[in-house]
Amino acid sequence: MIKVGIIGSTGYAGGELVRLLTAHKHAEIVWYGSRSYIDKKYADVYRNMFEIVDNVCMDDNMEELAERVDVIFTATPQGLCASLVNEEILSKVKIIDLSADFRIKDAATYEKWYGLEHKSPQFIEEAVYGLCEINREKVKKARLVANPGCYTTCSILTVYPLAKEGMIDMGTLIIDAKSGTSGAGRGANVSNLYCEVNENIKAYGVTTHRHTPEIEEQLGYAAEEAVVLNFTPHLVPMNRGILVTGYAKLTRDVSDEEIKAIYDKYYADEKFIRVLEKELCPETKWVEGSNYVDINFRVDKRTGRIIMMGAMDNLVKGAAGQAVQNMNLMFGLGETEGLELVPMFP
Amino acid sequence: MIKVGIIGSTGYAGGELVRLLTAHKHAEIVWYGSRSYIDKKYADVYRNMFEIVDNVCMDDNMEELAERVDVIFTATPQGLCASLVNEEILSKVKIIDLSADFRIKDAATYEKWYGLEHKSPQFIEEAVYGLCEINREKVKKARLVANPGCYTTCSILTVYPLAKEGMIDMGTLIIDAKSGTSGAGRGANVSNLYCEVNENIKAYGVTTHRHTPEIEEQLGYAAEEAVVLNFTPHLVPMNRGILVTGYAKLTRDVSDEEIKAIYDKYYADEKFIRVLEKELCPETKWVEGSNYVDINFRVDKRTGRIIMMGAMDNLVKGAAGQAVQNMNLMFGLGETEGLELVPMFP
Amino acid sequence: MIKVGIIGSTGYAGGELVRLLTAHKHAEIVWYGSRSYIDKKYADVYRNMFEIVDNVCMDDNMEELAERVDVIFTATPQGLCASLVNEEILSKVKIIDLSADFRIKDAATYEKWYGLEHKSPQFIEEAVYGLCEINREKVKKARLVANPGCYTTCSILTVYPLAKEGMIDMGTLIIDAKSGTSGAGRGANVSNLYCEVNENIKAYGVTTHRHTPEIEEQLGYAAEEAVVLNFTPHLVPMNRGILVTGYAKLTRDVSDEEIKAIYDKYYADEKFIRVLEKELCPETKWVEGSNYVDINFRVDKRTGRIIMMGAMDNLVKGAAGQAVQNMNLMFGLGETEGLELVPMFP
Amino acid sequence: MIKVGIIGSTGYAGGELVRLLTAHKHAEIVWYGSRSYIDKKYADVYRNMFEIVDNVCMDDNMEELAERVDVIFTATPQGLCASLVNEEILSKVKIIDLSADFRIKDAATYEKWYGLEHKSPQFIEEAVYGLCEINREKVKKARLVANPGCYTTCSILTVYPLAKEGMIDMGTLIIDAKSGTSGAGRGANVSNLYCEVNENIKAYGVTTHRHTPEIEEQLGYAAEEAVVLNFTPHLVPMNRGILVTGYAKLTRDVSDEEIKAIYDKYYADEKFIRVLEKELCPETKWVEGSNYVDINFRVDKRTGRIIMMGAMDNLVKGAAGQAVQNMNLMFGLGETEGLELVPMFP
Repeated sequence: MIKVGIIGSTGYAGGELVRLLTAHKHAEIVWYGSRSYIDKKYADVYRNMFEIVDNVCMDDNMEELAERVDVIFTATPQGLCASLVNEEILSKVKIIDLSADFRIKDAATYEKWYGLEHKSPQFIEEAVYGLCEINREKVKKARLVANPGCYTTCSILTVYPLAKEGMIDMGTLIIDAKSGTSGAGRGANVSNLYCEVNENIKAYGVTTHRHTPEIEEQLGYAAEEAVVLNFTPHLVPMNRGILVTGYAKLTRDVSDEEIKAIYDKYYADEKFIRVLEKELCPETKWVEGSNYVDINFRVDKRTGRIIMMGAMDNLVKGAAGQAVQNMNLMFGLGETEGLELVPMFP
Repeated sequence: MIKVGIIGSTGYAGGELVRLLTAHKHAEIVWYGSRSYIDKKYADVYRNMFEIVDNVCMDDNMEELAERVDVIFTATPQGLCASLVNEEILSKVKIIDLSADFRIKDAATYEKWYGLEHKSPQFIEEAVYGLCEINREKVKKARLVANPGCYTTCSILTVYPLAKEGMIDMGTLIIDAKSGTSGAGRGANVSNLYCEVNENIKAYGVTTHRHTPEIEEQLGYAAEEAVVLNFTPHLVPMNRGILVTGYAKLTRDVSDEEIKAIYDKYYADEKFIRVLEKELCPETKWVEGSNYVDINFRVDKRTGRIIMMGAMDNLVKGAAGQAVQNMNLMFGLGETEGLELVPMFP
Repeated sequence: MIKVGIIGSTGYAGGELVRLLTAHKHAEIVWYGSRSYIDKKYADVYRNMFEIVDNVCMDDNMEELAERVDVIFTATPQGLCASLVNEEILSKVKIIDLSADFRIKDAATYEKWYGLEHKSPQFIEEAVYGLCEINREKVKKARLVANPGCYTTCSILTVYPLAKEGMIDMGTLIIDAKSGTSGAGRGANVSNLYCEVNENIKAYGVTTHRHTPEIEEQLGYAAEEAVVLNFTPHLVPMNRGILVTGYAKLTRDVSDEEIKAIYDKYYADEKFIRVLEKELCPETKWVEGSNYVDINFRVDKRTGRIIMMGAMDNLVKGAAGQAVQNMNLMFGLGETEGLELVPMFP
Repeated sequence: MIKVGIIGSTGYAGGELVRLLTAHKHAEIVWYGSRSYIDKKYADVYRNMFEIVDNVCMDDNMEELAERVDVIFTATPQGLCASLVNEEILSKVKIIDLSADFRIKDAATYEKWYGLEHKSPQFIEEAVYGLCEINREKVKKARLVANPGCYTTCSILTVYPLAKEGMIDMGTLIIDAKSGTSGAGRGANVSNLYCEVNENIKAYGVTTHRHTPEIEEQLGYAAEEAVVLNFTPHLVPMNRGILVTGYAKLTRDVSDEEIKAIYDKYYADEKFIRVLEKELCPETKWVEGSNYVDINFRVDKRTGRIIMMGAMDNLVKGAAGQAVQNMNLMFGLGETEGLELVPMFP
């Protein structure tokens, strides 16, 4: 039984980790960290957990956790994990960081987009970017995994095969993304109130959203060139789900079948990626509550562009599900353990 | 492995049966009945099931099913199950009927409220009302189970201990219920369109809703008297969930602690019923996707009434989950098999 | 042109006052009070008002306002209006208080339910309860109007004719109410976040909600007896709208037609009250954005009860619309001035 | 008083026409056409209109209407208006067609994208494309106005000034649009049911949506070149609102201020177009129920692109509001008559 500690267990991503790990056959949460709710029963904060979780919330103590658990998940604001981690801790415990601290290989880029000084640049090189479908082998050997962002997971997986195979002109790539409101977190802000979000849609973080450099870096590795793109997120009145719509010029005249073959080459054996049948557009509802990413595309002969679409649950494959997938790989478990979640509809 | 056939697998309750049984370790669906979608791939009707279910939809053939499966679930409109079932079929296969055909012991009452002639009154007596927490032992031996209605499950379980113990004046009982829209089914009616339901709430079926006699009958058994009550359902702009608010005069001056003790007497050992901590009101979101019913109450000294509240997921405990719970009992499996679903939040 | 000052113009009720008064032919807002946003442009707080309102927010200064305006609306938390008002102010300016400070004639009752000391009990007697359809003539002569609560307006208007005519046993009256989330205000609380309210319904304030004594007092005047009832509010995932479902024993055997005639006696000439055609249930969506209250009922011969239903927009007839209606009466304008709002559907 | 006839008054756009014209001082609806509800009271179909509209629905008889009214609005499926109109009718009555029949100047393009034979190509040349802000003078003299599509209105107005002034490379223009569900109409389809739309987002009509050639044609006039672009609509779980996010390469290095000046040049005097203050992103909620289009943009120095955003209410400025605006112009009324609607929030 893998002993798990969670730092930041009472945010939405933390809560989803608890939902998934509670049902995981080979893991057991022994530390529910939550600076905001210390000594409060976890099930009083998330009442879905009544009679399922009896623990109380604990402070964020990574040193003590390193002694008591096999793996720490940090589902915390940017900067916290980097400020706590050190070599002694990493020598005792594996860390899966759901924040952005170790996702970007260039500390200067991190500091520019996040407006934070990086407190542990010495571990950036070692950290593995935990997008399992792409970095599976590296994850298996990692001590420190940077769990990808929600928008980035969906964006990268949707575009990756075509970038890798040189099918699209990376300089023309535009990603227009739409997210449910759980992505904004559980903070008590007026802009996240029911009445402000409901019956409303807006773009935000236009040209400045922090997931931009993460997408650029990873797609740059795939395309083997520097990538600069526009990424525009939108807030949608729903709890869960991210939909990504990507646009790019094709590098050559190509048929739907050729594109489909490329997606299949990379994803046919991937349990959690479903390339849909012809003409079907991904919908977030069809993957809700599960670790799936549904992907499809449409070639437009009129404009010479391809429209790529990807849908997933931002709290599962976009956060907690992918984190558990990383844990499974790091501990040699079956990769789908605890993640064979059937999407809930309606 | 229990072989399962579903008649009516493409309604919302049928779809939920598929979601639950797909993940059930000891059951296997071998027949996806759907008169509306014969020969169509099931995953084309419910795309959440893509790469999970490969079967195509079949016609409703109970005779053939009786030869091929161990249990038939009928998730069909009222009247269908009663028109198909016969002794030969029942001698070969167990039936769990999610419609109302065998819920009401008095055929005349059924015919009056449903406006239908009952086609198999000879099986009404035998049929077991499948509210597991109350009729567990009978269910274990049943050939034919009448799976309770959604509103009725929540209403009965919320009121049952107090009715049984004579704590409330049954002549004063009023049940005001609120349901998500999946309860209205997947039929293409203008009144169920997104724009008509969204940002709206209304009562419907006032004084005439068909779940009324079902609640009256079952609570009558508990109270050992004839019960006549007002039941008023409301349509709420959400997909899933039923909340029941019950009002009744207390038969004597009683403390919160005494009432709590009565609930605990009946439900402390019930896995799927959670009597909440003092002052907490049940919320449908805290049980979403799970088989739980959350219950609590408030005594009002000013009026001498008790307000009883119950929340559950109408498609799980109110339909498919309870049906699986019945199946587990009928086949001697662990009662919670396939139902240890952690509620999804948010 | 009536000069208007609003104290508390940036809450949801305040915002609705601005929406309505901006389009009012005989009123002009000259003071947008908002302690939270002093010196900020009003249109930066409510961006729907961009290019419509150019003013900046001002502090809450009732003394100064009394010099500059003809009427002050206080859309503020309980206690504020009572703490600011005095005889000198009232001699200069009319006040319409949207808080509960002057709604309840018995200060002790107010203090018990609200947990506040009343700072101006000397004005309670004079204050007119501004339910226009019932107190029209008194409102016309008032200096100080207590604008009714949202739940109370809908509850009282739905039950009033039957209470007045002795048709119902007031001791059996139960009111089960459902409200959209704007009723909870614009405060930044976790429990009002989109993800917590969406796909959820719950009761709250069970047996303790502050609108209870207000309903009891007003219906007591109608019935000419002391009324004690159960009032249970529920939070519904929608922005606007209140639906009230009332239950009571009829005092005698009565036909639908007789009840309809009673409602018509009181409401046939009331512009803002629509008694629906037979069998139609009120829906909040049909009155959204307007000052209407839609009412209907159903007699249940089985139980001897009547089920009464009322629907309205909580921010219009339940707050700002009724306040404007009061203003119209107090200043001798046409009662419907600025309130001929056609409900918006969908 | 302008006498108005509506053909198709019971769809959502028709219902919105009724809402707006009912409050219009100089217009009176005398014919509520609705083939689906002939002889039914209009207020039984749209119950918000109870006690406001007493008329019954009539058949679609354009010949008779031409005798009785001054203007006909056709809010009908594609093809109907073109099949009914003729010279005699147009000599007697003005027509504002809310369908696509006369929007596209090239009949072959219409027939290709709509899959319909055009029944009245002889009137295409004469018909004026009723985008008031651009074709105001032509509209004033028109007999037949083609009221623009919802997506197209928002897309064109958002991009127009920059296309006109040569600021963007039209070959790089991509429009990603998001719409509320009322845009899908009131037809009873499974895909528009509450449970299918709620908690879901999807793209549809990718590369094939019929508003594409309309946007291309109008922006082509502005840019004075043939335009071919990608337009991708998405279905959002809300009733009303369209948000358009446009992407294009800038033709030269340009500051935010220069772009703002260009928008102001075209829109500073336009009552219904609000160019927002710096850095604010348009949100559909801020214009709900009104005839406003809110527009803003962001220049991205990194990519050399501009992101343009526009938000409006699809049923008002995107359909009925613009139709009324056209009527006002055609009859020499004040352009804003009946359209001074303050957006409703929340």
